[in-house]
Amino acid sequence: MDSRRKPWVILSSLVLLVTFLLYYSSWTTQRTPLKYAEQAISKPAFKAPKENIWAELSEREAADVNAFILKEYAHLNLTEQPKNANENSIFFVETLRPNKTDAVPYLHGHGEIPQRYAKAAISMEIDGLPHMVYYMVGPLPISSESKISPLQYVFNNGKNSVQNPVSDFFALMDYCIELGVSISDITQNLLGASVNQKNPEDPNGLMAFPRPTPIETGEGGLILWIQFQRPGFGSGGRTLLPQGLYAKVDASSENRAEWKPKKFYYNGVLYNSEDEIRAAMSDPDFVRVPTNIDGPWTDTEDFDSQPDGREMPPPVSIQPYGPRYGLDRTQRFISWFGFEFYITTAQATGVSLFDIRFKGERVMYEVGMQEALSHYAGNQPMNGGLEFLDTFFGMGKKSFELVPGYDCPAHADYLDIEYHELNKTHKIPNSICIFEFTADHLLSRHSAQYSVTASRNTFLTVRYVSTVGNYDYDFSYIFYMDGTMEVKVRASGYIFAAFYSADEKHEKGEYGHRIQDALESSMHDHVINFRADLDVAGEKNEMVRMAVEPVTKTFSWDQPENPSRNTMHLVDYPVTEETGLDWPKNSREFYLVRSTEQKNAWGQPKGYRITSGTGMGNPPHLTIVNSTVLGESGRWAEHDIWALRHKDTEPRSADPLNYFATHEPLVDFKKQANHESFEDEDFNGDMVFYFNLGAHHVPHSGDVPNTLMHTSASSVMFVPHNFCDRDPSRESVQGVRLQLKGHRSGGFAGEEFDEPNGDLRSRMDRHSHEEKKKKKTKAHYFGQTYEEGMKVPLEALEPNQAGYISEQNFVSDLGFNGSAIGAWHRDEA
Amino acid sequence: MDSRRKPWVILSSLVLLVTFLLYYSSWTTQRTPLKYAEQAISKPAFKAPKENIWAELSEREAADVNAFILKEYAHLNLTEQPKNANENSIFFVETLRPNKTDAVPYLHGHGEIPQRYAKAAISMEIDGLPHMVYYMVGPLPISSESKISPLQYVFNNGKNSVQNPVSDFFALMDYCIELGVSISDITQNLLGASVNQKNPEDPNGLMAFPRPTPIETGEGGLILWIQFQRPGFGSGGRTLLPQGLYAKVDASSENRAEWKPKKFYYNGVLYNSEDEIRAAMSDPDFVRVPTNIDGPWTDTEDFDSQPDGREMPPPVSIQPYGPRYGLDRTQRFISWFGFEFYITTAQATGVSLFDIRFKGERVMYEVGMQEALSHYAGNQPMNGGLEFLDTFFGMGKKSFELVPGYDCPAHADYLDIEYHELNKTHKIPNSICIFEFTADHLLSRHSAQYSVTASRNTFLTVRYVSTVGNYDYDFSYIFYMDGTMEVKVRASGYIFAAFYSADEKHEKGEYGHRIQDALESSMHDHVINFRADLDVAGEKNEMVRMAVEPVTKTFSWDQPENPSRNTMHLVDYPVTEETGLDWPKNSREFYLVRSTEQKNAWGQPKGYRITSGTGMGNPPHLTIVNSTVLGESGRWAEHDIWALRHKDTEPRSADPLNYFATHEPLVDFKKQANHESFEDEDFNGDMVFYFNLGAHHVPHSGDVPNTLMHTSASSVMFVPHNFCDRDPSRESVQGVRLQLKGHRSGGFAGEEFDEPNGDLRSRMDRHSHEEKKKKKTKAHYFGQTYEEGMKVPLEALEPNQAGYISEQNFVSDLGFNGSAIGAWHRDEA
Repeated sequence: MDSRRKPWVILSSLVLLVTFLLYYSSWTTQRTPLKYAEQAISKPAFKAPKENIWAELSEREAADVNAFILKEYAHLNLTEQPKNANENSIFFVETLRPNKTDAVPYLHGHGEIPQRYAKAAISMEIDGLPHMVYYMVGPLPISSESKISPLQYVFNNGKNSVQNPVSDFFALMDYCIELGVSISDITQNLLGASVNQKNPEDPNGLMAFPRPTPIETGEGGLILWIQFQRPGFGSGGRTLLPQGLYAKVDASSENRAEWKPKKFYYNGVLYNSEDEIRAAMSDPDFVRVPTNIDGPWTDTEDFDSQPDGREMPPPVSIQPYGPRYGLDRTQRFISWFGFEFYITTAQATGVSLFDIRFKGERVMYEVGMQEALSHYAGNQPMNGGLEFLDTFFGMGKKSFELVPGYDCPAHADYLDIEYHELNKTHKIPNSICIFEFTADHLLSRHSAQYSVTASRNTFLTVRYVSTVGNYDYDFSYIFYMDGTMEVKVRASGYIFAAFYSADEKHEKGEYGHRIQDALESSMHDHVINFRADLDVAGEKNEMVRMAVEPVTKTFSWDQPENPSRNTMHLVDYPVTEETGLDWPKNSREFYLVRSTEQKNAWGQPKGYRITSGTGMGNPPHLTIVNSTVLGESGRWAEHDIWALRHKDTEPRSADPLNYFATHEPLVDFKKQANHESFEDEDFNGDMVFYFNLGAHHVPHSGDVPNTLMHTSASSVMFVPHNFCDRDPSRESVQGVRLQLKGHRSGGFAGEEFDEPNGDLRSRMDRHSHEEKKKKKTKAHYFGQTYEEGMKVPLEALEPNQAGYISEQNFVSDLGFNGSAIGAWHRDEA
Repeated sequence: MDSRRKPWVILSSLVLLVTFLLYYSSWTTQRTPLKYAEQAISKPAFKAPKENIWAELSEREAADVNAFILKEYAHLNLTEQPKNANENSIFFVETLRPNKTDAVPYLHGHGEIPQRYAKAAISMEIDGLPHMVYYMVGPLPISSESKISPLQYVFNNGKNSVQNPVSDFFALMDYCIELGVSISDITQNLLGASVNQKNPEDPNGLMAFPRPTPIETGEGGLILWIQFQRPGFGSGGRTLLPQGLYAKVDASSENRAEWKPKKFYYNGVLYNSEDEIRAAMSDPDFVRVPTNIDGPWTDTEDFDSQPDGREMPPPVSIQPYGPRYGLDRTQRFISWFGFEFYITTAQATGVSLFDIRFKGERVMYEVGMQEALSHYAGNQPMNGGLEFLDTFFGMGKKSFELVPGYDCPAHADYLDIEYHELNKTHKIPNSICIFEFTADHLLSRHSAQYSVTASRNTFLTVRYVSTVGNYDYDFSYIFYMDGTMEVKVRASGYIFAAFYSADEKHEKGEYGHRIQDALESSMHDHVINFRADLDVAGEKNEMVRMAVEPVTKTFSWDQPENPSRNTMHLVDYPVTEETGLDWPKNSREFYLVRSTEQKNAWGQPKGYRITSGTGMGNPPHLTIVNSTVLGESGRWAEHDIWALRHKDTEPRSADPLNYFATHEPLVDFKKQANHESFEDEDFNGDMVFYFNLGAHHVPHSGDVPNTLMHTSASSVMFVPHNFCDRDPSRESVQGVRLQLKGHRSGGFAGEEFDEPNGDLRSRMDRHSHEEKKKKKTKAHYFGQTYEEGMKVPLEALEPNQAGYISEQNFVSDLGFNGSAIGAWHRDEA
């Protein structure tokens, strides 16, 4: 009956091995930056000082862990390719990152390297219901010491498992198709199309999808809202093609045959049965409203338009001498002008950085994305109840090969992302890029009487892009020469739009703008949570809100003219307990994280400032108060920044499986941010911070076809504040000092104090054409500059995309790649 | 006695003419962008559709206006090179920009070109006191119709003149030197140096300067606070070298011989006379505190440091085919991918843009800087009373030639700034740059099942840099392909630091951080005001605060599972009267300016959003409430955005001469933003907006030697919001669509719906190495791309700075170039 997925051959380990080898051979075409200048500098091999203790499991480690679990937990009858959640399986294995208290003695002292552990998510039946259960496995490598134990200490609801509300994902998807077929008369009549069971991807057909999880559970049951979209295969933009018909299904029964649509919603009216909507449709006054049909308007490209200028290629960045950073590909360690850090990845959360140091001093133990929520609002059952917690879908897993020369400059370096799912290792080639870039503006400049100094703003970026269904997120970690660090997210892709009916009786514009004949833009909030475990010059830190405040002051020197003076001053407000903070009104507070032990040469505590950065204004937090759908799973979204005590038992603000149990999540952030004191004696001074990026997104016509990254950007920056004794970028930066006269700078630009004996005539002489030829401005460079022209190869201007490896943006070659739900496979029905 | 300035020769007009010619010849080395690709495209000459009616006066026009005034106002005995404010003179002439109501019929209809007028500032005596008086002169060219009349209609205090509080600037400066010399015993004892009257710029001496205006007037008198700095000639950083000694002088008398220091302030103690401080110094318990000595720590360059990577040049932007914009140099008109606008300049306010259109529709009549205030706070007489209104110093006049390849990419175009002061035309060559730049990130992207589309974010920038004493401001107007426009200011240069004494008894850190032995960072606010005369799809506009608000809703389709739902919705709050707005808490309001007449294809009013942009979070407004020194001159700094009725009588929010009369300014913004209704029938719908950029700047050790531009940036953006029917960048952008399979996009990336007949074995085959070689990814480009490698000349990588023209960053070659005060010259004493 279901023709979509033919039988999955049960593979022998031999076949698996061959598969791996084939993959490996195709993935070895690793992109590395070109060096094409004659003097291209060949650097010695660069080595990290320590091992990357956060590294994702190697393929060998993952295979060993899987084998160990299969052996030790043989009683679970673990299947390598499960058909549904009732078949037990190892969903994924990944590194269980070491506790910081074990890592720090290794990193910053002579401590032993922390023992290595894996985390395993096992899909298994408990009390007859499907669950996802976390275990820790180790120490690694597997030995007689190794064991499997429930992983519980990193969660705070007393459990290590979550019930899976959907026992058979494919059955659910099939039900949607069956439902569509069963009401073909209705869809054909109202929408001009119907679900094609033989070819569910029929471009002229309809697709039927349930509203994503969490699916509402009334009294333990499962309630589905199913909507119809056109597939939009011409552009991939099916979220722009809602059809305005929704069916509500009680899917509580184990027996799918008992599932029936109980309600229909169309054009603002709720119908209590199929018969009721059929009856209504036969009424001559029944209003049919236009629907959304795919067309060139969803195309993400305009190949034909030829405005002036498009016949020429745009400016492009080149880097003829190769990269200036050191990259240890084995340890995934980078060193760049004083910054040093390790890169690691996880299938759910993408790229994290660890042990970030600047000029040899500790700045951050960890920074990484925790969860990305998008929460919609609307007047109909789909967008009105729509919410995503995207790590559930695997934001690392959902990254793809980056487009060289576009996602990253042609001169970027690339790393792969690997993850281990269903007993296989998957490699996403060239999915992290690293590059230096010179901004279009300076880092610093000063024009004086006889000199001008200009220093270039060249920065380092580590980037990956995660495409979760309709949306592409660009995650960038950016480093600047003065010690500033930035975390920036840009979003693009198709919005998840809502159906628009001119006829429907609700307040127009209450949830978005009309952006097409039958389309409304559907307001939503993006809140993307990051952990920043700052260790500013060590672990012992404090946080102070340094406020800029108006004040009236009386000064002795001001008398008698000003009995008092309206001015301003600084007031420090220590953050004394775990709390959430918002970006201050009028930007009038500096959020400083300062060492309580280390001071700079001037006696100032070494500090970093946490500030909203170069996104669009201040990143927002969630608008909705006590969201009905989010439950306890988005408490981190309620403020902009959180200051917490560091605890090994609280390594994250969220867990991907929170999406399965939003009201009783594995990680309940509210229990972490629970007002514990920073002033108690038992507190060791190690603070950890969470912050949110995102946007209140009210898309408009310019979001069609795709949201644009330049205006969807949000950023938080960590800026040194008295961290060094003086601006450290001076030591690294490349620039020029123009000496206009003599060898000093003189006074302010434009001043002419120094002409004690000059009259106008003699000065004019100096400006004469003859003189001009002789007196060239002297340019003194700091840092290396370009010394000669060069031949730039095409690859440096326009990388050959034929090397792009992914054939169809696959991640997994084994089955539907979507989520924990989507891990299952089936034999032919 | 004063050896600094020898006699200024009175020049005949012949000499002046020669001077002009000499200048002109040296300025003709105009930089234009290189084209070096073989296929470099030669575009036909590009012409503006209309005349630039805002253009600065030509040299000829200015000379004619000056001559006309000299003739008509012969009774004023106008001197070409005045010695002090008691000698009448024409300080400057510039274009009096046409009234918008005259300009619009010309620009957007068949109206006559508006009559051209000049504005003249005449320094003259009124009732025995020096004044600066504004006149309008025209129509131009000068004819029998032309006349001179008081320019009053653009001011709102009923006057066209301001009293000049300082009648003899040089006398004041000389007094400071005399004072220094007269207390050499004190300065030598406390500061280890003294003022060198014979060589006031002695690098080992002291410099004495009065606290800048407004100088406090007690009962009409003139009170000066004079401080001592080391000259810091090695780096130009004298504002980092305060010495901690301050003298208070009553300078009310016309007779300078009567001026005497009445108080001294040192190390927190106020002394009532010279004798008192001398007596205190002889006390063995008197505390002498360390002072600030120049050294390498103020150097803006580190030539010697060689960290890894500095031996290689950084990435650089090239543009081998030349610019893709059209530039009419005569009319200063630019056209770039749908954007069109005119550029003009003014000596006080720098670059403004006029008649900005996008895709043929009106967006903005005018955008330009109005005033830049910096307001300090501190516990001593200098920084405690320090405040600047920088247009007074001439922020256009204070721009300098830009450093090619550094201030702007090597491929930038340049324009000059001209102004007319004291009967001369001054040209600042290559002081405005125009360039395209490709960002390090995309404008849009989407990864689908079978395709990836990536569009480059190439933007256009118009930039100039103004150096007002210690600080460099980078002003950038930035245009994006989707119709977004950005106004961005970055600051660098030396901070104006305060003296720090460890001994002094005040709360440390109340006004800044210690950043050197004897230096405190001195908190200050920068508030930089811009006018944005939005005409979104025409003049008839409205402003709405579209708020994103939490709400609890009951939906029919939600029953019975959710009796009500916590969600959010949009609420429109019309702005009904002239008012100041602040950036909203949690970014939760969209400030939309919408046409009340024009709608897009979907019935949405065409709109633009005003939003805080890519600076550091939200730009702030002034902290200080009712500043004692600012008086009524900074009312525009009290909120972030202002919405006003457009009036020809209110073309600006400030006037440079407000600095002379802060409590009774020529332009009192509060009288403009006076709550007039936008709903009255008499209102024609033409709104004008003001917005502020800037920063609460609490400098720290990393601000030494110079503040850094990447973190000092602030920005406001104007983003289309339902302005077009669809994203217009699609028509302009350059990018690539990678077709991984077939010719469609398929579904979401990572989905594998389309393998109805595929089993694993056959799919593995397709991924085999052999297959991979055959099946290359197809790259489909939109917009032109690079087709071949090329030889890039050195000039494109590293422009030859020997072509930098300014010999010593002069602006005026005639005397001290600083301010209206600084316009005077003197014969030998």
